[in-house]
Amino acid sequence: MQLSIIKIGGNIIDDEGKLGSFLDSFAAIPGKKILVHGGGKLATKVAEGLGISQQLVDGRRITDAETLKVVTMVYAGTINKNLVARLQARDCDAIGLTGADGNSILAHKRVHPEIDYGFVGDVDSVDTTFLTALLTLDKTIVFAPITHDRKGSLLNTNADTIAQELARGLGRSFDVSLVYSFEKSGVLLDTDNEDTLISRINPDQYEDLKARQLIFAGMIPKLDNAFAALRSGVRRVIIGRAEELPLLLAGKAGTTIVNE
Amino acid sequence: MQLSIIKIGGNIIDDEGKLGSFLDSFAAIPGKKILVHGGGKLATKVAEGLGISQQLVDGRRITDAETLKVVTMVYAGTINKNLVARLQARDCDAIGLTGADGNSILAHKRVHPEIDYGFVGDVDSVDTTFLTALLTLDKTIVFAPITHDRKGSLLNTNADTIAQELARGLGRSFDVSLVYSFEKSGVLLDTDNEDTLISRINPDQYEDLKARQLIFAGMIPKLDNAFAALRSGVRRVIIGRAEELPLLLAGKAGTTIVNE
Repeated sequence: MQLSIIKIGGNIIDDEGKLGSFLDSFAAIPGKKILVHGGGKLATKVAEGLGISQQLVDGRRITDAETLKVVTMVYAGTINKNLVARLQARDCDAIGLTGADGNSILAHKRVHPEIDYGFVGDVDSVDTTFLTALLTLDKTIVFAPITHDRKGSLLNTNADTIAQELARGLGRSFDVSLVYSFEKSGVLLDTDNEDTLISRINPDQYEDLKARQLIFAGMIPKLDNAFAALRSGVRRVIIGRAEELPLLLAGKAGTTIVNE
Repeated sequence: MQLSIIKIGGNIIDDEGKLGSFLDSFAAIPGKKILVHGGGKLATKVAEGLGISQQLVDGRRITDAETLKVVTMVYAGTINKNLVARLQARDCDAIGLTGADGNSILAHKRVHPEIDYGFVGDVDSVDTTFLTALLTLDKTIVFAPITHDRKGSLLNTNADTIAQELARGLGRSFDVSLVYSFEKSGVLLDTDNEDTLISRINPDQYEDLKARQLIFAGMIPKLDNAFAALRSGVRRVIIGRAEELPLLLAGKAGTTIVNE
């Protein structure tokens, strides 16, 4: 059975026009689907309003106890519940979850030799039985980028990682298409030229392009993750603009990453 | 099948000591259970931090668009997800919901001839099929006092009302005990004297006490609601201190309101 897992980031969430039309096209996807959302500018705004200063180390937000409160409020509260309500208004029977809900994504606090990331979670396991039960009830799952450690702590977890772990876990029983929303039209050979879009790429082609240094360095972690997802059972990974969702799923826009 | 529906308010949520021991005893309740929580002081604190002023009319909070954002953050985000994570840590497989999630509680914006309550919802229907499916999956449901109108708006809804609507709807297929957490030990003949606790009351006794003006006026709406719940199929309603939860459910503390 087909399952579409779509990850969107702040660039969609913060843009009311884009978000509305994205939700229209998301609601219209036939079959089972999961939406994974990141944060947006609101978390920063709320933190500022409450006088909580944000710490960044190597571009990563350090999640201290106060920051965890803010991301829980904004991601699991405002963003998640508004997405759910707006999908319900589009006849899409959505249910919002964090990893704590139904123990659906269990994680542990990140262990790092030098940096204390605070309440940041690395995923241990996904309860695919429960998620499959929800999908079988024809619910569309909307995931906030929050997990838990089963010791009572919520943990801030990267939304790309959540999408990937869901795709891996559910790839065992579903035919999963994993879509990463991206600010460009897909993987470009020249990041400044949208005409250089790679529309389809497999592992051999990727290795060849990498060897010839034709892949922009910033895209390598994203593509490595995509191929890792394919190796663990995901059918295809698609990278492109959320605004073009129906075209992405039809293979008519974006970059489709496949095994063969 | 037995189903316990427990409603707690801000007096428990704001008191870390009480909350921890309440969660211990809630997690230990055998069988199916639902927790409905209200807000607490955090919503006011966050609203102040963000410079949003609260409007009260006749003691009721008017929920303008900004206030709706705050209650969604705090009730559906912070409070709901922390309760879920802390129950998970107690081996209680909790899932947090608002009425928007799975379209579980549909409401409409309150219509009032004089007062515009803003984004306040009065309940239209409860999807007992979905909630029963979750309970059958051995999930414990944790409800935030937020519903939706299926037009894309979340709505602020009284937690007592949510507990009562859930009890009514699920009372058709479960043997429901509905517990209202209260700051006193139960219904008292003399509100200043805990020795005057009424441990058990039925409709005839209630009418008699009311006729003799022995029921404190402030308790009448609560008791009227309790008897209305009984008439609509709830097995028993219990009013008492959340700290005494196991004793309340055993009929050894609080006021048990029954039909006979």
